[in-house]
Amino acid sequence: MAKALAFDVFGTVVDWRSSVIRELDEFGRAHGVQRDWAAFADDWRAGYPPAMDRVRRGELPWTTIDGLHRMILVELLDTAGVTGVDAAAVDHLNRAWHRLDPWPDAVDGLTRLKARYVITTLSNGNVSLLTNMAKRAGLPWDCVISAELFRHYKPDPEAYLGCAELLDVAPGELMLVAAHASDLRGAKRAGLMTAYVDRPLEYGAGRRRPPKIEDGEFDVMAADFADLADQLGA
Amino acid sequence: MAKALAFDVFGTVVDWRSSVIRELDEFGRAHGVQRDWAAFADDWRAGYPPAMDRVRRGELPWTTIDGLHRMILVELLDTAGVTGVDAAAVDHLNRAWHRLDPWPDAVDGLTRLKARYVITTLSNGNVSLLTNMAKRAGLPWDCVISAELFRHYKPDPEAYLGCAELLDVAPGELMLVAAHASDLRGAKRAGLMTAYVDRPLEYGAGRRRPPKIEDGEFDVMAADFADLADQLGA
Repeated sequence: MAKALAFDVFGTVVDWRSSVIRELDEFGRAHGVQRDWAAFADDWRAGYPPAMDRVRRGELPWTTIDGLHRMILVELLDTAGVTGVDAAAVDHLNRAWHRLDPWPDAVDGLTRLKARYVITTLSNGNVSLLTNMAKRAGLPWDCVISAELFRHYKPDPEAYLGCAELLDVAPGELMLVAAHASDLRGAKRAGLMTAYVDRPLEYGAGRRRPPKIEDGEFDVMAADFADLADQLGA
Repeated sequence: MAKALAFDVFGTVVDWRSSVIRELDEFGRAHGVQRDWAAFADDWRAGYPPAMDRVRRGELPWTTIDGLHRMILVELLDTAGVTGVDAAAVDHLNRAWHRLDPWPDAVDGLTRLKARYVITTLSNGNVSLLTNMAKRAGLPWDCVISAELFRHYKPDPEAYLGCAELLDVAPGELMLVAAHASDLRGAKRAGLMTAYVDRPLEYGAGRRRPPKIEDGEFDVMAADFADLADQLGA
């Protein structure tokens, strides 16, 4: 039985894509440039797993997601021919990832789950990003745990096991909640319980990437956080 | 100007002494033993700085406060001739430090301060202790930062500087709030801003240990968290 729930954040709790597109739109208006910001947002997000892999392989020293996001952003702005933007404006745009909006069911669902379980983030996002996001969006975490604390990005086992250790629970008493099968598989390999939450709009309406999940592969299959709270008796 | 406030917890946010005495009373009733539980609580607390020093000197490997508290507790129970208590009951008593009550002004003051600043713990207590405490007492932290994350107990500079790094602020943008001059002096040496909060009842009524603080030594001198919020414009 789970004592604590650890939540993946980008895509699972917050709708990164529409939030980042909104921030890029604002950036474009402020700087008088127009681009395909939806494609830009997708490229920004797509740059992040390979950047984490560079850290994992030791090609880059430990770098936070803020740092990785900024490296990718500078390249994408350059490629898009967006020039002459001062560093402070780039920094502000980069922190778009601190200002992501939750899915409509997220705050209510977390509030219900918090009454019964310890709820924490377990995100590759850095602590300051997750803290700022929670403050703005009203996410009621009991604590903020990040891959940054272990200097190992998910799905490295150190991230899942480190989270259980900090919460002082056995791996089997911790349930990862995520919208991504690869993350859940990493958690399962480390001995955690797993709950899949469907987020069909993560990549935009009509751009669903249906996950291939075997029957019984994860402990819980939920339609959203309200359904998750129902199934977990919260 | 401070962007974030980091709070010492034991004695500053919560009244450890009367809470631990309450828990010892319950333990005594449950096990049919009567002792001077106030003195027991004071001895338990007094054992903790020397235990941290043993970790600091490398005589003990890294050990959380839960671990140190338990070592001290087992010795004190033995000295007091309290025998035959099973391990689960000792564990439960040891987690009395997870169940400390806040000072009467703490939750309201933190709630006001949270509206203007990022507020975090910066305690020698471990993450699970601080998380369980906050959940029970309704402490509205934006995040939970502990010496455990740095494997350096305050007043080692690593704890203060590590906190600033995780929050992505400069040391001079982070203010430590504490009821203990030694903690504030450690923070000041590391380049943090400092706010002293008076907690005259920490060691019990009529048992005040007045701190020797020079005029202007700390940035803010506050009577309680309401006064702190007033002075910080929150």
